[in-house]
Amino acid sequence: MITRFDPEQIKIYDKNRLNVLCDELRQTIYETVMKCGGHLASNLGAVESTVALFYTFNFPEDKIVFDVGHQCYAYKILSGRAEKFDTLRQKDGISGFPKRAESEYDSYDTGHAGTSVAAALGLAKARDLTGQNHAVIAYIGDGSFNNGLVYEALTSLKILKTKILIILNDNGMSISPTVGGMHDILSSIQENAYGDNVRLLQQFGLKYIGVKNGNDLDDMLESMATAKEALQENSVLLHIVTRKGKGYEFSEEHPVGMHGVAPVGSPQDTEYSHILGKTLCEMAAKDKRITVVSAAMKESLGLEPFFNDYPDRAFDVGICEENAAVLCASMAAGGLKPYYAIYSTFLQRAFDEIIHDVCAMNLPVTFCIDRAGISGADGETHQGVFDLSYLSLIPNLTIAVPKDTDEYRQMLQFSAIYNAPMAIRYPRAGKVLFDKTDEPIVVGKWEYMHKCESQVTVLAAGERCLTVVMKIFQGLEAEGKAFNVVNARFVKPLDEDLLNSLKGTVVTVEDNVEIGGFGSLVTGYLTKKQSDCKIKTFAYEDKFIPQGGIAQLQREYGVDCEKIKAFIVDNL
Amino acid sequence: MITRFDPEQIKIYDKNRLNVLCDELRQTIYETVMKCGGHLASNLGAVESTVALFYTFNFPEDKIVFDVGHQCYAYKILSGRAEKFDTLRQKDGISGFPKRAESEYDSYDTGHAGTSVAAALGLAKARDLTGQNHAVIAYIGDGSFNNGLVYEALTSLKILKTKILIILNDNGMSISPTVGGMHDILSSIQENAYGDNVRLLQQFGLKYIGVKNGNDLDDMLESMATAKEALQENSVLLHIVTRKGKGYEFSEEHPVGMHGVAPVGSPQDTEYSHILGKTLCEMAAKDKRITVVSAAMKESLGLEPFFNDYPDRAFDVGICEENAAVLCASMAAGGLKPYYAIYSTFLQRAFDEIIHDVCAMNLPVTFCIDRAGISGADGETHQGVFDLSYLSLIPNLTIAVPKDTDEYRQMLQFSAIYNAPMAIRYPRAGKVLFDKTDEPIVVGKWEYMHKCESQVTVLAAGERCLTVVMKIFQGLEAEGKAFNVVNARFVKPLDEDLLNSLKGTVVTVEDNVEIGGFGSLVTGYLTKKQSDCKIKTFAYEDKFIPQGGIAQLQREYGVDCEKIKAFIVDNL
Repeated sequence: MITRFDPEQIKIYDKNRLNVLCDELRQTIYETVMKCGGHLASNLGAVESTVALFYTFNFPEDKIVFDVGHQCYAYKILSGRAEKFDTLRQKDGISGFPKRAESEYDSYDTGHAGTSVAAALGLAKARDLTGQNHAVIAYIGDGSFNNGLVYEALTSLKILKTKILIILNDNGMSISPTVGGMHDILSSIQENAYGDNVRLLQQFGLKYIGVKNGNDLDDMLESMATAKEALQENSVLLHIVTRKGKGYEFSEEHPVGMHGVAPVGSPQDTEYSHILGKTLCEMAAKDKRITVVSAAMKESLGLEPFFNDYPDRAFDVGICEENAAVLCASMAAGGLKPYYAIYSTFLQRAFDEIIHDVCAMNLPVTFCIDRAGISGADGETHQGVFDLSYLSLIPNLTIAVPKDTDEYRQMLQFSAIYNAPMAIRYPRAGKVLFDKTDEPIVVGKWEYMHKCESQVTVLAAGERCLTVVMKIFQGLEAEGKAFNVVNARFVKPLDEDLLNSLKGTVVTVEDNVEIGGFGSLVTGYLTKKQSDCKIKTFAYEDKFIPQGGIAQLQREYGVDCEKIKAFIVDNL
Repeated sequence: MITRFDPEQIKIYDKNRLNVLCDELRQTIYETVMKCGGHLASNLGAVESTVALFYTFNFPEDKIVFDVGHQCYAYKILSGRAEKFDTLRQKDGISGFPKRAESEYDSYDTGHAGTSVAAALGLAKARDLTGQNHAVIAYIGDGSFNNGLVYEALTSLKILKTKILIILNDNGMSISPTVGGMHDILSSIQENAYGDNVRLLQQFGLKYIGVKNGNDLDDMLESMATAKEALQENSVLLHIVTRKGKGYEFSEEHPVGMHGVAPVGSPQDTEYSHILGKTLCEMAAKDKRITVVSAAMKESLGLEPFFNDYPDRAFDVGICEENAAVLCASMAAGGLKPYYAIYSTFLQRAFDEIIHDVCAMNLPVTFCIDRAGISGADGETHQGVFDLSYLSLIPNLTIAVPKDTDEYRQMLQFSAIYNAPMAIRYPRAGKVLFDKTDEPIVVGKWEYMHKCESQVTVLAAGERCLTVVMKIFQGLEAEGKAFNVVNARFVKPLDEDLLNSLKGTVVTVEDNVEIGGFGSLVTGYLTKKQSDCKIKTFAYEDKFIPQGGIAQLQREYGVDCEKIKAFIVDNL
């Protein structure tokens, strides 16, 4: 375990000591991830190249952008953060991603795929225009290299007339195994099967340098020095082939499963994803129109059963969120019934396509939005707290928030016969929480969980919020106090009949930012109807929410069980 | 002029008659665009290839997706819409873009760049899975071909295991002249300088067929037949080189200026764009940090003066909206002061990057958002009515809406010293409307245009709305009735002091959808503060707004001068 490391000391290490350092880094990463969770395999595979980077370049004068950030752990340990590395992904601890606010060694924050090449170009242009002379490096995995944003940035290389080093760490995996055209092209370059493909890169303005074994430190040191030299004249693509998970056999053998690791002992609350895969399989058996599209996340979304059972109707298109959305829209235009499963924050990438392709044509695409609400340890870039806002502003889109996994299953079944765009959003963890009701799902119809004569009605959007509210309800009921509890299972459209019937105090609770969210929609509706109701909204503040425990962050950023309870009691 | 055309008749035409048809189409397109406005040069360049398509394939059984749609006029005329073609871009008339609702010959709606290849893939997969056997074609210009979404779709070709024909109409222009790597690669393929680049396309799964002169009908007919034959075995890229504007000399010589044509006689209300270019030049003279990034729209955004005067600090990256946003974020991270000018609906493409790159790092990027609000004749895909909603939900972002071009200039000057993300949104047309105030711009501070003892206060966001409200004000003032009028020049943050001081009736007026917009923010704030004010919001309904005259659409979709006036009078 490395618990202290002076960034300067690596410069005087000999090769033996550097090899030992690689082993130490691997051990430190492994033990920390076992304790704190995080991304293991991708970080283990990047150890030698990171050591070679640190040995060859001069950080923080030189700048590096890690694409996504799942390969930055070794860099963090080497750049003065070894002492705090055991706080990885904990509240107020070291982030699992690059963070400018954390260290001057981090030049650009990442978290979503494909930004690194454009970011390196912008940093390099800023260097040129401000008369500086350092190196700027993009470190990117082959999975991200499929993303359209990378291609757009490559197209800009000549336009910006600047010089960057792109390190392409090619482990043949994106998150799911890498798919599609560019990976084949890079492989062929590597194998020299088509030597002229190197000219492709030259036409983008890149000099190509290949490294057959990016986990061999000697090779890496030599190639990195060559790349640094070449960078004086030209932008460079250093293509290194590594093994994801290198150094830990179980991880090498199961690179997908080890991509993200929960801390040992934490519960595997993946029931929503389980319901998704199982239900879609059941539906597909009866309905040949059903297809599934994923952007490189099929395992964590629970789609493996569908991919196994219906390989002809399941498409993992790699980290191409926009493309996946247009494929769904056009499949629907062609008469199919596509399901696009994705994490909440990654769907932000397809925002224009949801508007322009799916909803403007009113096509029956269903979005299954996982990791909605606060997601916890991954921090700002992964908190799915914007989706109710950015989706509800789009005409023609129905937005559902199940109260539990059982209702999720019902909603999925309903979606199969619903001939319009629909989004179903839910957090990672889930269970069957509530008594099953056999009421059919009707768009825009909510459900009373408890109805009484009280002047207080609480509208809860989705499982997490309803769980909080029911806990408050049960506590107060024991004291002889009661209020109305509503499962607001559609955020759009609202249940106007139910809202029209309300009197007294209306409380909304949601796992989303306040601006443009569920409470905002309810407030807007009641205001328009000149309702006399007093309205109170519990939602997240207008801030980026950092890493931390989910319950703690919910409390801290605006959805605090105690405050909700106090408000209800005050108004009973 | 073609005023009637039976889609079947082309099949019996001989080559002479087909050539005459090309001339007739050109004349019809030219005369219609001169009358109705629209896209001239791109449509003129596509005539021969469209005739060849129609002669060779069997529409509507075969399906075609026009990327963006600026090349679909000839197709529309040939596919049974000649009689109505003189209603182009008029209310309830023929759309300037493909529209499924308009004709069975239109398979997929477009308007934004880069969707056609993915859309063709999805339609082709739907064909395969439903046991059909027609051809599916994507027709795309070389400008769109730079977009990352196209690259993502090409990467999916092998994954989807289906067959499509891509017609790449290469006129060497995007909207600005085409820039960047892929265009050079395609040119080199065309010139056979690097014959092995064809293998690049093969690795994506494409067979390459090149046509040196895509405006020669004989060549086109022959190549189209070859492409149709090849499509039996493989996906095909038919690369045709055309001249944008072919057939009208002035248009060939000035292809940029003729890209979008306003109807003859209509005013050229481009003053906001004029202010942008001029002011940025003035600012750049004093501040070396200032850079400008555009995604292929520099002329229509008014940026030509800046590109001429500061070529080293001006970057047109082609139709790559996401890349442009990340370049701005990273330039700002590197110490520069970037301005990203773009149309409102195209910025939707960079939604995730605004959140993840610009605002999460709180970087001082300024977005200059043109064509905000209803833009008129381009219809659903170009109405900039979502931006206040999708921007206001993002933490750290300041949103300004100038009351006229003079205030726009002040806001731009203010932005230069403002060290955080800022968006300034404005419609196309603008003028200096109001008396100049020398009050400095302060974030979140509004301005009373008229203040009195009335119990009614109208908060107007931006020039169009303030113009409507001031017109009402002047009318009522003449009748001895007055109300308070506020220039709500910041949509975010709100002027909380001013809002706290209000009593009676508060009216909001905005050029944006109601959900999540300015009125929603005001309603949310006043509700939270338990204000006793009665609130009334005028904004657009939750619908996609079709093509039509701006004033008429404003009225029809919720911002109706008469209704606003009536509401004010009722509440005075």
